[in-house]
Amino acid sequence: MDVMSRSTASSVQGSKSAHPATRAGAEAPADTTAAADAGVGSDFLQLDIGQAPPGGRTAWLADRLRSAIADGRLPVGARLPASRVLAEELRVTRGVVTEAYRRLAESGQIAGRGRLGTVVVAAPAPPRARATAMPRTQDHARAAAPSGPGAALFGSGDREGVVDALRALPSRIDLSPGVPDLAAFPRTSWLRAERAVLAGVTPADFGYGDPRGAPALRTAVVGWLARNRGIRADPDEVVVVAGVAQALGLLGRILAADGIRRIAVEDPGSLGARQQLEYGGHEIVPVPVDAAGLDVGALRASGARAVLLTPAHQFPTGVVLDGERRRELLNWAADGGTVVEDDYDAEHRYDRPPVPALRALMPEGVCYAGSVSKLLAPALRVGWLLVPQNRLDAVVTAKRYADLGNGILTQLVLARLMDSGELERHLRHVRQRHRRRRDAMLRAIEKHLPGAHVHGAAAGLHLTVTFGGPPGGARGDGFRDTDLAAAALAEGVKAHPLSWHRITPGPPGLVLGYAAGPAHELDEGIAVIGSALRGLLA
Amino acid sequence: MDVMSRSTASSVQGSKSAHPATRAGAEAPADTTAAADAGVGSDFLQLDIGQAPPGGRTAWLADRLRSAIADGRLPVGARLPASRVLAEELRVTRGVVTEAYRRLAESGQIAGRGRLGTVVVAAPAPPRARATAMPRTQDHARAAAPSGPGAALFGSGDREGVVDALRALPSRIDLSPGVPDLAAFPRTSWLRAERAVLAGVTPADFGYGDPRGAPALRTAVVGWLARNRGIRADPDEVVVVAGVAQALGLLGRILAADGIRRIAVEDPGSLGARQQLEYGGHEIVPVPVDAAGLDVGALRASGARAVLLTPAHQFPTGVVLDGERRRELLNWAADGGTVVEDDYDAEHRYDRPPVPALRALMPEGVCYAGSVSKLLAPALRVGWLLVPQNRLDAVVTAKRYADLGNGILTQLVLARLMDSGELERHLRHVRQRHRRRRDAMLRAIEKHLPGAHVHGAAAGLHLTVTFGGPPGGARGDGFRDTDLAAAALAEGVKAHPLSWHRITPGPPGLVLGYAAGPAHELDEGIAVIGSALRGLLA
Repeated sequence: MDVMSRSTASSVQGSKSAHPATRAGAEAPADTTAAADAGVGSDFLQLDIGQAPPGGRTAWLADRLRSAIADGRLPVGARLPASRVLAEELRVTRGVVTEAYRRLAESGQIAGRGRLGTVVVAAPAPPRARATAMPRTQDHARAAAPSGPGAALFGSGDREGVVDALRALPSRIDLSPGVPDLAAFPRTSWLRAERAVLAGVTPADFGYGDPRGAPALRTAVVGWLARNRGIRADPDEVVVVAGVAQALGLLGRILAADGIRRIAVEDPGSLGARQQLEYGGHEIVPVPVDAAGLDVGALRASGARAVLLTPAHQFPTGVVLDGERRRELLNWAADGGTVVEDDYDAEHRYDRPPVPALRALMPEGVCYAGSVSKLLAPALRVGWLLVPQNRLDAVVTAKRYADLGNGILTQLVLARLMDSGELERHLRHVRQRHRRRRDAMLRAIEKHLPGAHVHGAAAGLHLTVTFGGPPGGARGDGFRDTDLAAAALAEGVKAHPLSWHRITPGPPGLVLGYAAGPAHELDEGIAVIGSALRGLLA
Repeated sequence: MDVMSRSTASSVQGSKSAHPATRAGAEAPADTTAAADAGVGSDFLQLDIGQAPPGGRTAWLADRLRSAIADGRLPVGARLPASRVLAEELRVTRGVVTEAYRRLAESGQIAGRGRLGTVVVAAPAPPRARATAMPRTQDHARAAAPSGPGAALFGSGDREGVVDALRALPSRIDLSPGVPDLAAFPRTSWLRAERAVLAGVTPADFGYGDPRGAPALRTAVVGWLARNRGIRADPDEVVVVAGVAQALGLLGRILAADGIRRIAVEDPGSLGARQQLEYGGHEIVPVPVDAAGLDVGALRASGARAVLLTPAHQFPTGVVLDGERRRELLNWAADGGTVVEDDYDAEHRYDRPPVPALRALMPEGVCYAGSVSKLLAPALRVGWLLVPQNRLDAVVTAKRYADLGNGILTQLVLARLMDSGELERHLRHVRQRHRRRRDAMLRAIEKHLPGAHVHGAAAGLHLTVTFGGPPGGARGDGFRDTDLAAAALAEGVKAHPLSWHRITPGPPGLVLGYAAGPAHELDEGIAVIGSALRGLLA
């Protein structure tokens, strides 16, 4: 993977920074290298490694360097210390420094200059907009370089918190991925089950409980996974968690305790999952995804000892890990690799039954995480985590210290809905609604975005469109998808730029959720995007 | 603090280990030092520091050494490498090794022997009982050295998970502290509020929300804290968390990111809170508690930059931090110290209104955590965390990556119960019940434990009894409180030995919860403890 060949710094280049951005890897103008010998003192930036969080030295160092570039302490043209020198000064391994430098090179702020060393080539965009009210601006849809809060949000090189910030902005039509039909939430069934739970719960149930979760829910989850995902498990193996996000946090912690600090992820893949792992101090190792799913050969070559993937319905491309790749992956696991299976939306399949979970094939090599976020509602914050026996104690301990276990009432209500069959009835009901909405979105894309390629529409709650090439391809179409998303947002329509979920650059695209809103909104939302696209290309 | 002067290893000494335990700091018998030169190879125990969790190297090393002593790889008499040598081999600071050695010395497993170095002096008790069913044994109450699952539980030198293990054991009468009257849980009010919530909640509320929690609950918490704890805050400053346990985990993380790795705690103080911080990689700095609360002079002398304390009702001694100490503590905070205020049960005060929270006096120096665990039920897993403005962003980020926020329905129901005044009505109701139960327990103690000193009965949900001295004093009464708790458990009565919550040894005692069960059980439970005590002293 040639990370230097094309910078992800497009957003930096699009900023209104006073410093013209320079593409990483291109020749630097003479005036930026002239300052190189200004030199950086031995107590470089007064960095104090003692301030770095446990396991997060690379992220900490990268952040400090970014701050110094942003506030002018490291101006464009300044030379950074050689990685070996800085590593010695900070008493860290050289890998920490080279990786921090690599991240800044990827974001286009520094670049290698041969014998001149590593120099600052671009100051970043202004700080990202906080999640505050967005004034409606009607006149930006056709501007080639959008401005306003949406532009600041999408234009920031810093992706941290960007999904939350987008979520907090108001919009007319929300095509963000990852949310099911929330209007269909079974309120009546929920209240009925809650009444039964409150009538039957014992005083002891209200006390401190098993950190693994309520036995009733663990038993119900076992039944659910057997019926829907082909997984055989014992209730003692199930740990109830606060969604897949928490599951990844707990797993990250115990993998780090086993000395596993590099985790491979799909590229493109979920930005949120990646940020979660990075916050936990892990180094992310991108592995390409093609039409058969994760490239297991590339995984093997990467040397990573653990991989996080979405085999049933890859996020965001929607491909299913095919049979050959599944066999390769299980061989890799049998050789000692740890597979983390994020089974976030596998129950939503429209053409045929979902493929069984990897966990069903190999309980001993696969950590499995799922949740009710796509079945019922993300706001319930309930999921489950199954790990191989040799990691179970560590996961239970991590869950205990995280929060002593999930809240009891929501657990017991869910257990009733699973045991009674009501959750499966709900799933069949929303699956029909989701399918109709998917069809409406496909029609709208055909009408308003005739040149777009559609990916992953056979399952899930979202699809991905790309412009000018396949999602794993290399050729773009001359515009930035962040600009397209910003222009759509200026017209009140939210969608995720595909580049948010990419590590290695690729053609522009959008990730479009279709499950949450009614069909007529889908048509209107895609029409706004089509109009914004024509404005960008005009 | 002279940690070597009296080992906390009483539990080890009480085990049925084949190796007679030797008190740390006493002279070692010649036969244990004779093996000292057997020597330990340069790849000592094949320790691989890469397996240590981030920030947890000391705990990891101590654990590996304990395992090696337990399984015989390090027999009694074996000499440990010099700390400087082992630190170099492991590529850790020498402080990591000396601190791990100190912990094993405290638990009586190793001891310094002058020029002979550090040697193993005692093998530990057998592994603690897992949380499984306990056979009722009727004949141990009078045995001077109890055996059975209770004895294994209480006799283990390893306190990790011991509270969970005790919780999972069956009992006739549970006097464990920390649980309110759970039979009084307001089921009818809860269901009524849930019905209103489900009728009014919007589809968007079921989506991914603000990681800080539902605005309705944050607003309700602000009102609650103003009315009950004298705290003025803005809803934007409140972060809803999954109980105080999660609050401590999040705070520990951001303090570590600020370079604060040593956290002072009250001694005696909550075992659970201490374990939580240690799991997060923090070094615990014990600070004595006397009749006026935490010794702030000792805190200042310790050099710790953060302190966790329970000023309104110290756990477990029940003392209130007095006015002079509060002023000293706030001066310490004004000089840059960070105060973490665990306000776990301040609303339960029987003689007069509770003292205001420290947070009410100094919002900028105090991180404040509270929960509904003692108001309603621990199993709800809802609490709140208020931090100074300069730490707010870091806490919100930590909460986001922990679990994306608490579950919505429980939050909205709680908000209604707070706003409607029903939670305050419930509190008044259970406060009366708790007071009657406290009085019943005081009568029972007078009757069945005539020699015991009672502490902290003016507030809260528990009291502490000591035998032979004040809780912060130094003199014991010739028996171990773990043996007393084990003997009581053998008769079906659970209580916490005070020594679980001590760091520095002190007189034996018990921490006795009185809020959870009916008055007649309290009398019976204390009678069983009295009988067990007479058996021990006979």
